[in-house]
Amino acid sequence: MQAVSLVVIGSVAYDAIETPHGKRERTLGGSCTYIALTASYFAKTSIVGVVGEDFAEEDKAFLSSRGVDLEGLEQVPGKTFFWSGVYSADMNDRTTLQTDLNVFADFQPKLPASYAEMPYLFLGNIQPALQLGVQKQMTKARFVGGDTMNLWINLGKESLIETISHWDFLLINDSEARMLSGETNLRKAAEKILSYGPNTVVIKRGEYGAMLFREDTFFMVPGYLLESVFDPTGAGDCFAGGFTGYLVERGFDLRGKNVNMRDLHRAVIYGSVMGSFCCEDFGVERLRTLTRQEIDQRFDDFRRFTAF
Amino acid sequence: MQAVSLVVIGSVAYDAIETPHGKRERTLGGSCTYIALTASYFAKTSIVGVVGEDFAEEDKAFLSSRGVDLEGLEQVPGKTFFWSGVYSADMNDRTTLQTDLNVFADFQPKLPASYAEMPYLFLGNIQPALQLGVQKQMTKARFVGGDTMNLWINLGKESLIETISHWDFLLINDSEARMLSGETNLRKAAEKILSYGPNTVVIKRGEYGAMLFREDTFFMVPGYLLESVFDPTGAGDCFAGGFTGYLVERGFDLRGKNVNMRDLHRAVIYGSVMGSFCCEDFGVERLRTLTRQEIDQRFDDFRRFTAF
Repeated sequence: MQAVSLVVIGSVAYDAIETPHGKRERTLGGSCTYIALTASYFAKTSIVGVVGEDFAEEDKAFLSSRGVDLEGLEQVPGKTFFWSGVYSADMNDRTTLQTDLNVFADFQPKLPASYAEMPYLFLGNIQPALQLGVQKQMTKARFVGGDTMNLWINLGKESLIETISHWDFLLINDSEARMLSGETNLRKAAEKILSYGPNTVVIKRGEYGAMLFREDTFFMVPGYLLESVFDPTGAGDCFAGGFTGYLVERGFDLRGKNVNMRDLHRAVIYGSVMGSFCCEDFGVERLRTLTRQEIDQRFDDFRRFTAF
Repeated sequence: MQAVSLVVIGSVAYDAIETPHGKRERTLGGSCTYIALTASYFAKTSIVGVVGEDFAEEDKAFLSSRGVDLEGLEQVPGKTFFWSGVYSADMNDRTTLQTDLNVFADFQPKLPASYAEMPYLFLGNIQPALQLGVQKQMTKARFVGGDTMNLWINLGKESLIETISHWDFLLINDSEARMLSGETNLRKAAEKILSYGPNTVVIKRGEYGAMLFREDTFFMVPGYLLESVFDPTGAGDCFAGGFTGYLVERGFDLRGKNVNMRDLHRAVIYGSVMGSFCCEDFGVERLRTLTRQEIDQRFDDFRRFTAF
């Protein structure tokens, strides 16, 4: 009998990153990687992804050391997805220099039999039809969420809306929420997106924080104010990992009639906390040393710096 | 014996405003007007400003109806300061079409004798040397704050820094905080500004909220999420009026050793609340009907939508 686990689907990649603080030629990245690593502080995590022959044993070992189940990480001939980008001096803009999809171009998520019974599923940012295909294989899933990106909105809103209509929650950034809904005002944008099916929508605003919406209420939080942002790559995915991981840890039921809103608010805070840690070093580096104690300490700091 | 009052100095103007929701050819405006009107919900307010012969009796009557003392409002030959501007479709950009300083060009604040003994002073955005001159006339003031704008930073940081070195608190927006301090990171920018003299700095971020800094702590709050932003003109000044007015109502002593941080946090919330109401209608229109009960209701809503 497999332990209950959060299944995470998405990209596993190598990134080259340059920020005003320095550069890395090749560092572990990909949405699935960030989400699984951050969620692993709260819950058992299992990933579904694909890498090439160049994927390093030490990177697998790092993921395993955080308890991430790699049974669904397929390794195939070819190279791992590679992305490179450079940030502007104020880090508000990012320019993509190179995107080599490599083995990720033909990614067809294959779920190990042991995953099929799992109750928790997070669908990282891949083609909406693939996200839907995975969800259909996990017939027991009773807590399903995911995120998306502008590419899929541009390529076809209908397919994306069909996919998210089956989700409990969608994480999306503010500009994408406006694109997807056609509404400029974020409250109206959220209402529109809720009408597509999810019972919960979280709109991420980068350094400005995040907002959670349900049919009858909303919650808003400012971004955690860091003394220095080293590298924002992956911060949104770490938000997803913290938010989702905490809800899984709590065995949260988003479909229920009596949703504990305070607990749901706390999930947004844990998301923000994980996103803030992510920015403190290059790529996933901060997660190599981060402890749950530090996470809970920052959660408490968050309360101290926002309570009135 | 004059009642204890908050003295507010700044511009009193007429504005022409165009937003995606409509336009107004001539509506009461000016920083002093917004600040005094919003602060009047919390404390007795007295203004120092100048208007021309065209300043309408009904506008004076409106200010008086909110208890604003107009003894320091000088009326001189010529026309009242006039500004006109138009907002972009998403209201994130504003273009100034016309700025006629008129009688405001030669504004030399004249304090009525009855104001000189007042303990509370807010120096709205005018030339730093004039702000300093007013403060020197109010020798009993033990609670002094103000704001500024990019113009004065560009025209001479030294004069501005000399002026604010005598203040207890500075309200400033994020881009101006970066300009004034030369620091991109807002925590570092705030530290630098605190080193100039004020014991408290509030950085306003428009729709993204605000942050308060003191030597050893900070507080952050997201912007209140409105269903519809009608006209953001004056929102920053209304923040100033709510923040300052609440502290005056509480008889707050920013210079003390045992500052009640919770209460100071609440002042930021009242600032945000007043800024949010301002956006609900053109110019000062919302303040014609707004009640203290509505203000306190939104304060409670703020807590409900941010507590975790």
